[in-house]
Amino acid sequence: MKILVQKFGGTSVADLDAMKHVLGKVQKGLATHDKVIVVLSARAGDTNKLLALAQQWSAAPDKAESDCLVSTGEQVSIALFTMLLKDNGISARSLLSWQIPIQTNDDFGNARILDIDRDTLYKLLESYDVLTVAGFQGVTQDKRITTLGRGGSDTSAVALAAALDSCECEIYTDVDGVYTTDPNICSAARKMDCVSYEEMLELASMGAKVLHIRSVEFAKKYKVPVRVRSTFSDDPGTLVTKEDASMEAVLVSGIAYDKDQARVTLRDLPDIPGTAAAVFGPLSEKGVLVDMIIQNTSQDGHTDITFTVSRRDLPKTLEIMQSISEKIGASEILHDVNVAKVSAIGVGMRNHSGVAARAFTALTQEGINILMISTSEIKITILIQEKYVELAVRILHDTFGLDWDIA
Amino acid sequence: MKILVQKFGGTSVADLDAMKHVLGKVQKGLATHDKVIVVLSARAGDTNKLLALAQQWSAAPDKAESDCLVSTGEQVSIALFTMLLKDNGISARSLLSWQIPIQTNDDFGNARILDIDRDTLYKLLESYDVLTVAGFQGVTQDKRITTLGRGGSDTSAVALAAALDSCECEIYTDVDGVYTTDPNICSAARKMDCVSYEEMLELASMGAKVLHIRSVEFAKKYKVPVRVRSTFSDDPGTLVTKEDASMEAVLVSGIAYDKDQARVTLRDLPDIPGTAAAVFGPLSEKGVLVDMIIQNTSQDGHTDITFTVSRRDLPKTLEIMQSISEKIGASEILHDVNVAKVSAIGVGMRNHSGVAARAFTALTQEGINILMISTSEIKITILIQEKYVELAVRILHDTFGLDWDIA
Repeated sequence: MKILVQKFGGTSVADLDAMKHVLGKVQKGLATHDKVIVVLSARAGDTNKLLALAQQWSAAPDKAESDCLVSTGEQVSIALFTMLLKDNGISARSLLSWQIPIQTNDDFGNARILDIDRDTLYKLLESYDVLTVAGFQGVTQDKRITTLGRGGSDTSAVALAAALDSCECEIYTDVDGVYTTDPNICSAARKMDCVSYEEMLELASMGAKVLHIRSVEFAKKYKVPVRVRSTFSDDPGTLVTKEDASMEAVLVSGIAYDKDQARVTLRDLPDIPGTAAAVFGPLSEKGVLVDMIIQNTSQDGHTDITFTVSRRDLPKTLEIMQSISEKIGASEILHDVNVAKVSAIGVGMRNHSGVAARAFTALTQEGINILMISTSEIKITILIQEKYVELAVRILHDTFGLDWDIA
Repeated sequence: MKILVQKFGGTSVADLDAMKHVLGKVQKGLATHDKVIVVLSARAGDTNKLLALAQQWSAAPDKAESDCLVSTGEQVSIALFTMLLKDNGISARSLLSWQIPIQTNDDFGNARILDIDRDTLYKLLESYDVLTVAGFQGVTQDKRITTLGRGGSDTSAVALAAALDSCECEIYTDVDGVYTTDPNICSAARKMDCVSYEEMLELASMGAKVLHIRSVEFAKKYKVPVRVRSTFSDDPGTLVTKEDASMEAVLVSGIAYDKDQARVTLRDLPDIPGTAAAVFGPLSEKGVLVDMIIQNTSQDGHTDITFTVSRRDLPKTLEIMQSISEKIGASEILHDVNVAKVSAIGVGMRNHSGVAARAFTALTQEGINILMISTSEIKITILIQEKYVELAVRILHDTFGLDWDIA
């Protein structure tokens, strides 16, 4: 039995006209597959309206009740869309997470999927050609509704595909695939036909918001091929899949950037064991996510530590640093918000040396000063002044040959 | 363990201010009971908005999907109200019908409650002081959401009270109890302190819309004392309970009326077996509810049949009668929409003769012509011209001594 999972976001189900486009995609899915599982988000704006309602009722809404409230958004979507399917002669029914169930832990508002009952799905597919499943939500062992956090419908879709054998997953959005970089910055940006899970993870975490990062992790873990494509065109989109030899021939697959960066430097810390823990422990406790971290070589038993955080976390970060500065012995606390990071990503760089050097050379030739560097197996990240971001993206895109179609 | 069930309708949960009144009632309930189960309707207007949405999507929305859609209204109510309870230091959680479960048959849109799992409720009451339950909905054996039809939240509340031992039930509304007749018509109308299930059933079916008829049937069957009272006052309201000796001392408890009546007469039908079935069979098949029926004594082997239907069903009824008139052999089909019915209701009339005669005499003295008469054990119903309704209600209210407080 060939099963296809198709996921549609809030703008795709916003109104009856949009849903008719979705209907067309489901009909195309049924033409090439035996069964289709449709995963829907809440109608655009519904989730925010419900969250605003909760805020009106309570300054700190109970999380379990908030999930009970917010999950009605997807329930409305699946009921309406299933009516449309049935009116068009398609045998279909709606499915809420507790009806399957999609079991999660009880981390309300940000729950993790633990298990999906595939037997229920296979049994229902004997009676129906299409199952319309509410995305974004699950149910705990003791039958309380949970939500999976922002972008959770992507994760629902991939998890459903993972639960069913040899099942493909299509994620429909309002762009027609994953690009080598942001087309708004770089006109030479090119849609990729194919990208590896690892590359997609790095691109997603850098703010290439096409696909939610947790859904990519899920897809990677269970080897689910995911195709990102547009509800409003017939473009085949981008296939996210496991890497193969041809991918490794490509040095760099994409260039990502992130302007939401603020840099903090602690000067002249004593270079003794426990200093780093004393700095980052309190930040972690207060929920501040630290991104890049650099510690320079010690001089005279003292060292500098520099790290970056999200800009909205900067005030909190500085407050925490002030409160511990005496204890950790920092001579000075510096900060800078006019910074941004640019990354070159590619599974191919694992097997090639010199990628970093080529990147640095290209940027330096254009007079861009490199503030921080951090590298991983398949990524080079460079912190620069924010005003150079667009230029840096275009330089790296050109340097690594992404301007031409080399696929 | 003293448990109280409190039910609040759509206007009582319409917004945050209204819900604060509900909070006050729950706090009062907790002052005199160990635990409170709160049953809520959807916020005023929400259900109609959702039904309108379904109509926009489909000319004939799938009933199961419509229930999935509409049931989100109560889900929103219970989540919001539970947030409010928790913010006020009350240990509480929301409960959807499938989480208990409240089992129903699969008559979507108009389902009947089959069973309620009382063990789940008792177990949860060990951990929480208040359970906020979504009214109006249930779940089928194979886990699909159903709704109980208009006014179903009253039924949910009474059914929950019935499921728990020695549990009282309060139905909060925007009037402060059940009246001897409509105060808008008769200024002498008096709030009753107490009314029997049987009387309430007759009052409810006559359009005294305080309490949904199915909830009264449920209360009668399981002997649940139901108190009807106002969310917005401290009046003790009206207790609906099993009849006792003092009730029988009262001849007539209330006067009800219904203007939604249309009369149809079939002339000169052959008085042979099967005629009535030939008339009312097709009406029942097409969903037309027939109210009063009268068949006169046969003359020359022919008879007249007169019956009443709701006014909106009159065109359909006449159409059906035309189509079968030849087959049943009616010489003429007459109809009249300017009619209405007035009823005197009281368990006391079972033990007293002459109640009907007193009613007819009183009406006739004022020149009101009686068109049809129908009597039951505890009710006398009279069809009259619509223009006399208000006058007839006042005459009967006075005739049976309801103007004075005789309780």
